[in-house]
Formats: sequence, C-alpha cells, structure tokens
Amino acid sequence: MNDTPGTAASDAEVVEAANTAFYDALEHGDLDALGDLWLDDDSLTVSCVHPGWPVLSGRGEVLRSYALIMANTEYIQFFLTDVEVSLIDDTALVTCTENILSGGPAEEGNALGPLVGQLVVATNVFRRTPDGWRLWSHHGSPVLAESEEEEDEETPS
Amino acid sequence: MNDTPGTAASDAEVVEAANTAFYDALEHGDLDALGDLWLDDDSLTVSCVHPGWPVLSGRGEVLRSYALIMANTEYIQFFLTDVEVSLIDDTALVTCTENILSGGPAEEGNALGPLVGQLVVATNVFRRTPDGWRLWSHHGSPVLAESEEEEDEETPS
Repeated sequence: MNDTPGTAASDAEVVEAANTAFYDALEHGDLDALGDLWLDDDSLTVSCVHPGWPVLSGRGEVLRSYALIMANTEYIQFFLTDVEVSLIDDTALVTCTENILSGGPAEEGNALGPLVGQLVVATNVFRRTPDGWRLWSHHGSPVLAESEEEEDEETPS
Repeated sequence: MNDTPGTAASDAEVVEAANTAFYDALEHGDLDALGDLWLDDDSLTVSCVHPGWPVLSGRGEVLRSYALIMANTEYIQFFLTDVEVSLIDDTALVTCTENILSGGPAEEGNALGPLVGQLVVATNVFRRTPDGWRLWSHHGSPVLAESEEEEDEETPS
C-alpha cells in the first residue's frame, strides 16, 4: 500500500506515543481522554486486565473499572521502561514495564495517603483507525519474583 | 477479500482451536508442538508473560522458559472457561480463564508432588499465517481478588 522507506519505523513511534498517551490519561485521571484512546468499534470487543483482576470485556465494563480506580487513587505516576513495539499491518503490540508510584485518598485530613511503589508488566494491543491508534486490549500483571535463571547467573554462590 | 458469509464465525472457531492446541501442548509437556504454535517470523517479535513474571521477548527466551516450566512440572491440567475471541483481518485476540491444576516433581519417592489449584487469566494474541494461526503474545496473570463491585452486589450487608 505504501512503499515509502521508514514507514514501519515511524508507525512504531506513533504507536509508542499512543501508549504514552494512555498512561498520561491515567496519571491525570482524565476519563474522557482515556475513553478516546480505547477502540470504539461494535465489531471488536475490547478487553482489559488490571493487575490481579479477572478479565473485563467491552468499553462499558472497562471504562467503569477505570472510573472506580481513579476515584480511589489520589496520586499515580508511571515510569515506563522496557517499551517494545511489535507491529504489522494495522495491529501493534506494545510490552512495557510500569514502575508505578501511587497513593490512595487521604485519611484523617492528610493531603495524600501513603505512597506505594508497584512493579507491573503490561501487554497493550493497539489497532490503527482513521483517528489514530486505539487500544484493543490492555493486560497488566504484578511482577512477583525475579527469574531464577537471572539470579543464578548474576549471584555467585 | 473474501465475501463468503460466515467466514468470520469459522475463523473464530479455528482461532479457538489454536488456543486449545496451545494448552494441550502445555498439558502434554510437548515443547516441539508448543514451538510450532508460536509465530516464527523475523519481523515480528513474540512476547510472553507467565503469571508473576517479567516480560520475555523473542522465540528463544520464550521457548526456554517453557522448557524450564515443563522440567519443573510433573502434572498440569487446564480447564478453560470464559473463552472469548475478538478477531479482525489476520489478528485475533483471545481472552480466557485458566483454571489450573498442577503438581511439581515427586519428593522422596512419591509419584507426584502435591497438587495445587491456581486461577489465571490470559490474553493470547494470534496471527494468521499460511500454516494456520500462530501465537504472537501470551500474557497470563494470577487472579488475586474478586472485583469489589460484584461482592457488594451479591453479599447483603
């Protein structure tokens, strides 16, 4: 369709920007911006897994879950690392590590609840639409342990 | 490209069969069959997240992880529920709940280690290839808690 050299590379950059925009919307508690980033297509069901949660399906269920999370989150910041984009045709798959710093609502007059650090890995699937790349699926999960192999290799016994 | 009515429906069935074959290969500890089910395409990097693990990227890393898991698993059975297929063009996204029953290697002469039940949800992304649908990404994560909303609705206070 398009034989311009470098198209794949710039596609990946645009996808990475969409991925960043997703986390920006979460940081800002902006449910409207978040809703705009999720695919809105009757023929394709979006799905979302928050760390430790079951699967949520469909825009209604997914966006309600984010409204609930935002209502219970006073502060959240994502430091993304290991962002990798794998892309073909109109589908892109992004994996990244979410280094999260978050705080719940204040208790007894404090401005902010205690801050908690959390390590989460995510697989985010995007579809290209006329309006840009949109989320088809987000799956986040807690990293509970280092790989044994790596530890064995790095730690002298 | 193909205007035969019902094509989408049968595509979904074929994808679901590929998804089942993936878990069958794991149940049988068949690393060759598993390797055949993962995408083998230099231009597309496969990725895999086991429950609680960081992201693994590339066929080598992914298949080594399965070899390690198989070596430490004497018995594993997957009861799949909530299997949902979302499909467009040559990409399919499957979500499912893996109700897992597994046992480690025997200790001190027993035939089988203790059996453990585990609840995992997975997002599996498949690509259509000339040889059939192949895994591009698997992301599994532990279900740690019921959604609060559901509990509130079902449990009278």
